Parts: sequence; C-alpha cells; structure tokens
Amino acid sequence: MANKLPKSFHCSTEFTLAVLGGKWKTVILCYMTQRPCRYSELRRLMPMVSDKVLTGRLRDLLSAGLISHRHGGGRASPGAYSLAAKGRSLSNVLHQRYQWGHDNAGKFHVEVGEPLKAFERDKPRA
Amino acid sequence: MANKLPKSFHCSTEFTLAVLGGKWKTVILCYMTQRPCRYSELRRLMPMVSDKVLTGRLRDLLSAGLISHRHGGGRASPGAYSLAAKGRSLSNVLHQRYQWGHDNAGKFHVEVGEPLKAFERDKPRA
Repeated sequence: MANKLPKSFHCSTEFTLAVLGGKWKTVILCYMTQRPCRYSELRRLMPMVSDKVLTGRLRDLLSAGLISHRHGGGRASPGAYSLAAKGRSLSNVLHQRYQWGHDNAGKFHVEVGEPLKAFERDKPRA
Repeated sequence: MANKLPKSFHCSTEFTLAVLGGKWKTVILCYMTQRPCRYSELRRLMPMVSDKVLTGRLRDLLSAGLISHRHGGGRASPGAYSLAAKGRSLSNVLHQRYQWGHDNAGKFHVEVGEPLKAFERDKPRA
C-alpha cells in the first residue's frame, strides 16, 4: 500500500507490483474498472475470500488512495467503493491482465469463469 | 507455473496472476521482453535475488513453457534464456506494468531505477 511503500525501487515493474500488492487487491481493482462496487457485491464476486481479508484489502486500497468510498443513505442507497484517480490510471494495466487470461486460458488447458458478465447482468440502479 | 496450475479459475485475472506467479517471475519476464538474457546478466539486473531463488524461478518459467533456454558454445557464445511463444503473448501485459510504474512513480513520491537502460547500453554481441 502506498503509505508503506519504500522510497525507491530497483525498476518500474517492481514498483507497479508493490502498488498493486498481490492477488486480491488486483482482482478487486479489476472489478472496479467496470463500475463502483458495493461491499456485498464484492463478497459475492469473491466467494473464496473471507470478510477479514476483503475488509483488510479494501482498507489498504483506500489508504493507498487507489479507491474511494461513498457513504450510502441506508438500504435504498447503499455505499459503494470506486476507483480514485490513482486507481483509474491503472485501468489499462488491469484490463490487459484480464484480457490476456481470457484470451489464453485455452492454450494452458484451464477454464476461467466470467463473474463480470453475471455482475453486469445484475447491475443495480445507479 | 503451468504444470501446477489448477484446472479452473474464478476469473481471468486470477488465471493471469497464477501464470505470472509473483514478483520475481514477472520481473524476469519483463527483462526478456527486451531481448534474450544470459544468466549472468539476470544476476546483475536483480542483485537482491539469491542464486537459489533466481535458478528456481527460471526453472518454473521453463517448465511452464513461458521461456526457453538456448545452450551456448562456451565462453565465446554463452547460453541465453528467451521468451517462448507463450511468454511472448504476455509482452503487452508486461510492458504495461513497466510503463505504468515509469509514468506514475512521481505521483507516489518514489524513485524508480532504470536497469533496462544500463542493460541496453551494455548489450552483448548477438
């Protein structure tokens, strides 16, 4: 996370990897490139991640300035997390990762799900 | 590494991250997008990585089919590692990571080195 980043890195790739900070932060950010996400949606998109881990990763992303949180007005208008300017600058990086996985899974003989598709079908009112 | 990949992934991003497999493999692949690298060059480009780790990561990348190794003919023509077709398909993903880090370090108040520049200056004869 940005507030714990070293002051210097040996190369640019190491810096990018440090900002993205592992698997789950990357996955969370990837979903947010599509649109703002409520906490309950992220829970559903990442069923294998515990509440503790998800909450921790969101806190890290907030403190790094990569995402922001809009507080909601109760059930009718729940709060949502979305990319902040720093996070939006990563959109191409995140999109490339998703797209490469989508395009190349067959070559590695693996199957990949498309949770973003279900996500879009189930888009809540703005 | 590919020979230990699960058969299915929840989403494409998770698959891509599993193939790239952490920090050092990504950094190694990123250097190889520039040109084939000798083992001694990689040692020099990644001084903070031990021989044991570097050798292990190269073995993983070879067994995943992302890189290949051309055996050399002694001192005058040392062997080199280079991207295989599967690895070359990741070039855009790798380039984007490098470029984002290069372009955004200032916003995060960090300095990043440019070992690839020194690498190019010191390019050996083909």
